[in-house]
Amino acid sequence: MTEPDLVSRNVDRILARDIRVSARLMRDLDDRRPAAMATLKALFPFTGKAFIVGITGNPGGGKSTVVDALIAHYRGAGERVGVVAVDPTSPFSGGAILGDRIRMQRHATDDGVFIRSLATRGHLGGLSRSTFEVVAVLDAMGYDRVLIETVGVGQDEVDVMKAAHTSVVVTVPGLGDDIQAIKAGILEIADVLAVNKADREGADRTERDLLHMLDLRAEGERKDVEIVRTIANRGLGGGSGIPELAAAIERHRAKAWSGEGGVVRARARALAQIAELVRTLLAERADRALAARGGMAAVAAAVVERRQDPWSIAEAVVGSL
Amino acid sequence: MTEPDLVSRNVDRILARDIRVSARLMRDLDDRRPAAMATLKALFPFTGKAFIVGITGNPGGGKSTVVDALIAHYRGAGERVGVVAVDPTSPFSGGAILGDRIRMQRHATDDGVFIRSLATRGHLGGLSRSTFEVVAVLDAMGYDRVLIETVGVGQDEVDVMKAAHTSVVVTVPGLGDDIQAIKAGILEIADVLAVNKADREGADRTERDLLHMLDLRAEGERKDVEIVRTIANRGLGGGSGIPELAAAIERHRAKAWSGEGGVVRARARALAQIAELVRTLLAERADRALAARGGMAAVAAAVVERRQDPWSIAEAVVGSL
Repeated sequence: MTEPDLVSRNVDRILARDIRVSARLMRDLDDRRPAAMATLKALFPFTGKAFIVGITGNPGGGKSTVVDALIAHYRGAGERVGVVAVDPTSPFSGGAILGDRIRMQRHATDDGVFIRSLATRGHLGGLSRSTFEVVAVLDAMGYDRVLIETVGVGQDEVDVMKAAHTSVVVTVPGLGDDIQAIKAGILEIADVLAVNKADREGADRTERDLLHMLDLRAEGERKDVEIVRTIANRGLGGGSGIPELAAAIERHRAKAWSGEGGVVRARARALAQIAELVRTLLAERADRALAARGGMAAVAAAVVERRQDPWSIAEAVVGSL
Repeated sequence: MTEPDLVSRNVDRILARDIRVSARLMRDLDDRRPAAMATLKALFPFTGKAFIVGITGNPGGGKSTVVDALIAHYRGAGERVGVVAVDPTSPFSGGAILGDRIRMQRHATDDGVFIRSLATRGHLGGLSRSTFEVVAVLDAMGYDRVLIETVGVGQDEVDVMKAAHTSVVVTVPGLGDDIQAIKAGILEIADVLAVNKADREGADRTERDLLHMLDLRAEGERKDVEIVRTIANRGLGGGSGIPELAAAIERHRAKAWSGEGGVVRARARALAQIAELVRTLLAERADRALAARGGMAAVAAAVVERRQDPWSIAEAVVGSL
């Protein structure tokens, strides 16, 4: 079969929700196979229907439990749910470490739920690109709702959350000042804040602190962020506060993604995604340029012996591209 | 004064440890001023004397307290200490949020200590580049020891830690499974592991878990990582376990950075830094190319309406550079 035929056949199968072909496409995209990229591009016209919810926040905040409860909630409402679980990984081995996702696995036998784990692979920007790709495949497969879960609260997570329509930041009472600093860093990407484990001591104070931080961060117009209290691990039925969290997400959806404002926002989002793709393509080009460049051992020795400075060398490499 | 004169005068002043001129250089580097880059390059031949220790780990692990205690320890040994405190920041406003560094501030009046905070600024790779620059300035200023402290455990932190000779990962007993997953992600950059708050319940189990994870992660040769228990906030004299932590750092220094192996390692480090600089220069170029490109609004509309896919557009932008 020729490549166009193969692409077209794969597109048909993925639109028909063929799990095996879809999973293989995601793997092939990870391996940067050209035919996989062609398939992804051919799928793109069929995307744009899924509503994408990002869930991030401090480690130990129970994000997986919140995601699990949201899956149950959306399934209960008859929606099909795709999940992208972004895992921390070794910068060297490229292997993914799965966190404690045991509860989520109860959905593994439900064919209305598709869970895909992603590792960082140590590429600059590679994680956000991969997330964007997997979300597009899930969208084309007809999942109504795509949840992106990240572990951690760094720049990676901020970049990954750009793929979401609504970002939920999960926090938890009483984790100390270090956490507060991080929360402030990620606060501006939050559209909805969930205070999970809200039966713990200190939930009132955490909510007060969050409101205070939102006020502090607001220069000019204060972003309208709802705060919802959840106890996600209470029972298998979805936990306490989960319908309220889902309702807050829907309110954000209605407010942010409808009408003329929604169109403006969608265009800004498309531009941000293009910019991200451009940056990662250039990073790959730089890696290849450095790998192909002979004499780097001599250059390294010159830097170690302080005969040449690394900034001038880097400028020369970029200039030679 | 001509620029070469100005650069030469600034270099002299920074080598003479002029705090005001050095601080201004760091600010000007942040603002990407060409004259600042020229000064940095001229300073490079005078660097290479400082020993650089990176300290990272889970939020809530008491990293700032460990850093504070290490500063006191090194000062007690007569060393001059530079500190780069990498803060989480808003991806949008560019403003730095200082964490709880109150204890560290007791060193603010000690002119043998220089503390510089860095924000992420939302640039891909920008944080590691800035860290590298500030470390070089502190090195040229004659600080014997430079400590890099990061908040968080993502790819950013892994990149930032590449500037260090010895990386210390600070962990803490009893933070749950989510934390364990993150720890595994950052474990491979650890040269020394500190179990802080070691008087808490669960320190034995944490140490066992860490040993187990080190074994699991070792494919072939097991990396030789020392585990040290600390209670960094015990008293102002440096806390319990800090001399032991400092000794473990020195053992790593002697093992990794001396002899022929040290030379090989230094060259690999120089290459990694050049690669990082190349990536960030390319990212800046991409940002400029996108900003300069007219008609992006029309392109964004085509993506939103699914008439064009973002991957093909990104490839066209990169191809046109």
